[in-house]
Amino acid sequence: MSALETINFTRGVPAIESFPTAELAACATTVLAQSGDAILQYGPAAGLAPLRTWLAEWQGVKPEQILTGNGSLELVQFLCTAMIKPGDVVFTESPSYDRAINLFRRNGANVIGVPLQADGPDMDALEALLAQHKPKLFYVIPDFQNPSGATCSTAKRKRLVELAEQHDILLLEDAPYRLLRYRGTEEPTLFELAPHRVLHMTSFTKLIAPGVRLGFMKGDAAILAKIGKVAEDTYISPGYFAHGVTYEWLRAGNLGPQIAKLKALYAPRLEAILAALDKYIPDAVATRPDGGFFLSLTLPEGVSTTDLRAAAAERNMNLADGLAFFPQGGGERFLRLPFCAMTATQIEEGIKRLAECVKAVRK
Amino acid sequence: MSALETINFTRGVPAIESFPTAELAACATTVLAQSGDAILQYGPAAGLAPLRTWLAEWQGVKPEQILTGNGSLELVQFLCTAMIKPGDVVFTESPSYDRAINLFRRNGANVIGVPLQADGPDMDALEALLAQHKPKLFYVIPDFQNPSGATCSTAKRKRLVELAEQHDILLLEDAPYRLLRYRGTEEPTLFELAPHRVLHMTSFTKLIAPGVRLGFMKGDAAILAKIGKVAEDTYISPGYFAHGVTYEWLRAGNLGPQIAKLKALYAPRLEAILAALDKYIPDAVATRPDGGFFLSLTLPEGVSTTDLRAAAAERNMNLADGLAFFPQGGGERFLRLPFCAMTATQIEEGIKRLAECVKAVRK
Repeated sequence: MSALETINFTRGVPAIESFPTAELAACATTVLAQSGDAILQYGPAAGLAPLRTWLAEWQGVKPEQILTGNGSLELVQFLCTAMIKPGDVVFTESPSYDRAINLFRRNGANVIGVPLQADGPDMDALEALLAQHKPKLFYVIPDFQNPSGATCSTAKRKRLVELAEQHDILLLEDAPYRLLRYRGTEEPTLFELAPHRVLHMTSFTKLIAPGVRLGFMKGDAAILAKIGKVAEDTYISPGYFAHGVTYEWLRAGNLGPQIAKLKALYAPRLEAILAALDKYIPDAVATRPDGGFFLSLTLPEGVSTTDLRAAAAERNMNLADGLAFFPQGGGERFLRLPFCAMTATQIEEGIKRLAECVKAVRK
Repeated sequence: MSALETINFTRGVPAIESFPTAELAACATTVLAQSGDAILQYGPAAGLAPLRTWLAEWQGVKPEQILTGNGSLELVQFLCTAMIKPGDVVFTESPSYDRAINLFRRNGANVIGVPLQADGPDMDALEALLAQHKPKLFYVIPDFQNPSGATCSTAKRKRLVELAEQHDILLLEDAPYRLLRYRGTEEPTLFELAPHRVLHMTSFTKLIAPGVRLGFMKGDAAILAKIGKVAEDTYISPGYFAHGVTYEWLRAGNLGPQIAKLKALYAPRLEAILAALDKYIPDAVATRPDGGFFLSLTLPEGVSTTDLRAAAAERNMNLADGLAFFPQGGGERFLRLPFCAMTATQIEEGIKRLAECVKAVRK
């Protein structure tokens, strides 16, 4: 590839070549012929009934324990409207998903970061923070975390739900990458460990495509009813058209093969980026994730992400702002690198350019 | 029809038999084959680019003057997040759309009702209220108003934009029924009269189907950019899948014939409900709308909507709560009657039952 081609190490977008486009077209034809009236009319804000039932069976819960929405991020907003008052404390990992931090703040929350380690939140720091604050909730991304790529260990998951129990805190578990594990073995979800303490959230954005705008929350029916009422008051019904097509696609048994296809596509890209980092920037400390969309770097001493972004822009490369992931500062040398939407060739070229940038800005 | 069949005079749902289901299926196949990548990937929160361009050309504005969303109601929420602070005054007509009133309140607005007359807001009352308050915006539904069925006269529209100009007020013009005129001649939109003063809002819910969840705002590009940023922060992108299908349906020239089909379906239903009211409840005062989804009744003296709803429930009939449409009280004898989703036979039976209820509860 040419040095002039733009490279984006910015957001966690899925690879276009992974989209099951023709399958979705066939499902649209089928579901419109069979259930057109239901997916074109208004209906319950909690979700299209057969979809909710399918998701509930898949997840081993009752349909009323599922709340669907137009992507999972917006469900966080509805949760905030239902539960967060200005001044309420919300814990997130630090770093955490910048859009979630932004939403909590927009709703007036005082967002406090719990330092994240390679195996999950720093438990000593969490306990110290719990001695000072009474958070309304702790937002955590236990699997292949955004932005770090870290996965929380089973031991820390267990301790986390214990602490949530002791301190009467709701855990908001965001798990959009969980099913994209490229190596290693699965840890239990927080929801599995303490279903009454956890709202578990996931999405088909990374498994099918962002365009279907389908995410869901799983948890206590009474809490979800409250959040669902906010959803109804906001948009009456979610996007039944795309949700109906997605339901048909799920019902037809496409999810398993699609996940296998995604792993086959993305696992070599993770290998490629790790190899390129070892080759071109050996002195940057990279997380070595077992799945998901991101790894992250701690840049060498003296190299700031801000300087690096400017140098990258001169080389036709876009990098994400590191600072936005840290609710209370830090992240000056933090760099998130999404790798799923790039070919191995683009990854190699991207990391090569990144190394040039590091060299150029190093003081 | 049987007296046991449930009749719903509740929400403004479109008739299922009006949905262009097979056309939408064909459009889904076409657009996924041609532009699958774009409608399945993330993209700008303001809307799918070709759709925005099509809407702009249709509406005679620039693409940056169009903000699409998952239905128009949610755009009101985004506008509130962008512009309304707790304690801000918002004017609405009284009665007005209950879900909009509810959203303004949820955002902390002090909602003040401007009494509505058969030809639009009471201008003397509006001037008196403007002497006391400085509203952030005035939410108006000039065409076939929800819930009353009233249409604002051209003279009042002109006065409204004059007053908005004098008092530096934004007008939020909600026009989801405008293209469904069954008789009479079109009045100018507020946007046509004062484009810089008005955010005009409409939706394809009543023209295609609720399931496509496609509404849009038209107006000042800078204001829409601010509202669009709130949208991005909330859901990243709107429902591109359904919006892409709708774009293809619009592009293929289906809107004109669809509107003709809807008018042919709904106009006789309006005639049927007016005739049935004249026959069965001649002493209730009905609005006589020229289009849209609703007419409204002022019930005879001594008959309250609350009592009537209870009596209707005993006769397998659901009526909407009248009080929720009035931001500051009133509406005890107000009844909204949606007529589009009912056959002439159901309408006749419904109004007959309604007459029985009126007789039963009259004191």
